[in-house]
Amino acid sequence: MSRRADQTRYHVDGDLVPREAATVSVDDRGFRYGDAAFETMRAYGGEVFEWDRHAARIERTCEALGMPDAVPEDLPVRVAETLDANDLRDAAVEVSVTRGVQPGSLTPREAVDPTVVVRVRALPRGGLDGEAVWDGPAVVQSVRTRRVPDAALPADARTHNCLNGILARLELRRARTDSHRPDEALLRDVHGNVAEGATSNVFFVEAGTLRTPEPGDLRPGVTREVVLDLADGESFPVETGRYDLDDVRDADEAFLTGSTWEIRPVESVDGIAVGGGPVTALLRRLYDERVEARCY
Amino acid sequence: MSRRADQTRYHVDGDLVPREAATVSVDDRGFRYGDAAFETMRAYGGEVFEWDRHAARIERTCEALGMPDAVPEDLPVRVAETLDANDLRDAAVEVSVTRGVQPGSLTPREAVDPTVVVRVRALPRGGLDGEAVWDGPAVVQSVRTRRVPDAALPADARTHNCLNGILARLELRRARTDSHRPDEALLRDVHGNVAEGATSNVFFVEAGTLRTPEPGDLRPGVTREVVLDLADGESFPVETGRYDLDDVRDADEAFLTGSTWEIRPVESVDGIAVGGGPVTALLRRLYDERVEARCY
Repeated sequence: MSRRADQTRYHVDGDLVPREAATVSVDDRGFRYGDAAFETMRAYGGEVFEWDRHAARIERTCEALGMPDAVPEDLPVRVAETLDANDLRDAAVEVSVTRGVQPGSLTPREAVDPTVVVRVRALPRGGLDGEAVWDGPAVVQSVRTRRVPDAALPADARTHNCLNGILARLELRRARTDSHRPDEALLRDVHGNVAEGATSNVFFVEAGTLRTPEPGDLRPGVTREVVLDLADGESFPVETGRYDLDDVRDADEAFLTGSTWEIRPVESVDGIAVGGGPVTALLRRLYDERVEARCY
Repeated sequence: MSRRADQTRYHVDGDLVPREAATVSVDDRGFRYGDAAFETMRAYGGEVFEWDRHAARIERTCEALGMPDAVPEDLPVRVAETLDANDLRDAAVEVSVTRGVQPGSLTPREAVDPTVVVRVRALPRGGLDGEAVWDGPAVVQSVRTRRVPDAALPADARTHNCLNGILARLELRRARTDSHRPDEALLRDVHGNVAEGATSNVFFVEAGTLRTPEPGDLRPGVTREVVLDLADGESFPVETGRYDLDDVRDADEAFLTGSTWEIRPVESVDGIAVGGGPVTALLRRLYDERVEARCY
């Protein structure tokens, strides 16, 4: 698509603007320091799925960053306006709330004039009649890059500091061969426990029990919470704990979760076949039903 | 100063532009992910001090970020043009090299069209006839936030992912009273060893020996290297090692280093008086002499 033909509009600081005019100052702390909250959501049929959980998390992130009043009250309106302006009902929605332009030093000023950006891009329909956004099951590769500990950056905060995941994904380049094309990096914490994917949480099934690393140094995603809800509703045995790579490699089933990917089966971990299975399939079905019931 | 009166010009993507027009796309990975190299330098008399070390580090950072060819060959020219356009000879100089605008996901594309930004701001003259940029010795407060480990983000890389230092500085708000006004946060690594300040390296003197934490999880700054050079030239006993908070609190002298602060004595750590002393004073003198000899 040529730039001229691009009709995409973003919401920047209260205004809908063409994508090519959607900019921030180089003095904005969101650019300069990654000093901003970030939230990725998914809209189905014009409705943001799990809005309340996402809205609560972006509030928590802003609180963790010492700017508790930064989220604009009309954020839901801005999101709706951005979807409408782009004539989108099924889309990825990304919200940034930065600490705004401030002069000088790393130390933030108390008074905050946040910069708020809403971006959208088209996704296929979801729900029972939907299609997955991924081409196939995930090929997962464990990497050397370790998850940033919660003691250094609060694990629950979603921000513009994303280099940890980027460095993990860059390692996949080196692991790639003609027969092995990993597309998600699996990070361990500094102690060697499995933490999460670069942009996903990980679940696996062993002896009929659904397992996922316990919160701590991982980022407990909204989709992870939904999956735990769904498993609870089915009275599945669920265990959260500390696991090593072999636990995931040897699992009967494994899948990744994220707002955009939803529930994505894992084909292999470090070249070892894992695959989906009946638990993964049932949870995907239940997830699609919830999307259908809530949004379409 | 009103916005209208602001004549500051920045260098953005090859052009000198007024500050209010200095922007980047919200799709720039430097904004979205903090996916960018960053370098702070100081110019004295129109010359960037220790240019070679800074240039080498920005190259290393870009290599660590998987974009080894991102630094433009004419970067020194862009820096000189920015100083000239602002009629500045004594200034802080900040360079950003981002991975540029890329569509879609966290995984970087191999082809990189970097965004390069050069910003400057006036500082007082340095060297023997200069004045310090800080108001007085540093009041240092140790914080709970731990330094991001090297295994999660390479310690030597300077990037737009600065939340670790920002969260450390935010903790100073809570520590502030009428009589105790800390202005630098001291971070420990995840093992509890003293690492560095939010934007500085730390040195201290004990029983005549100059001590500083060894590289590992700290960011070995250019000014730290210069100080080690100067101490070596004077045949000072120097030791790098692992230290705890008490080692710094109980020191005979302590100081912080950074390109902008140069060598800044420490008044106190956690309310415990430390202060400068003859070693700090001599190193400051030697530093000023080097600046004078190289730049004026």
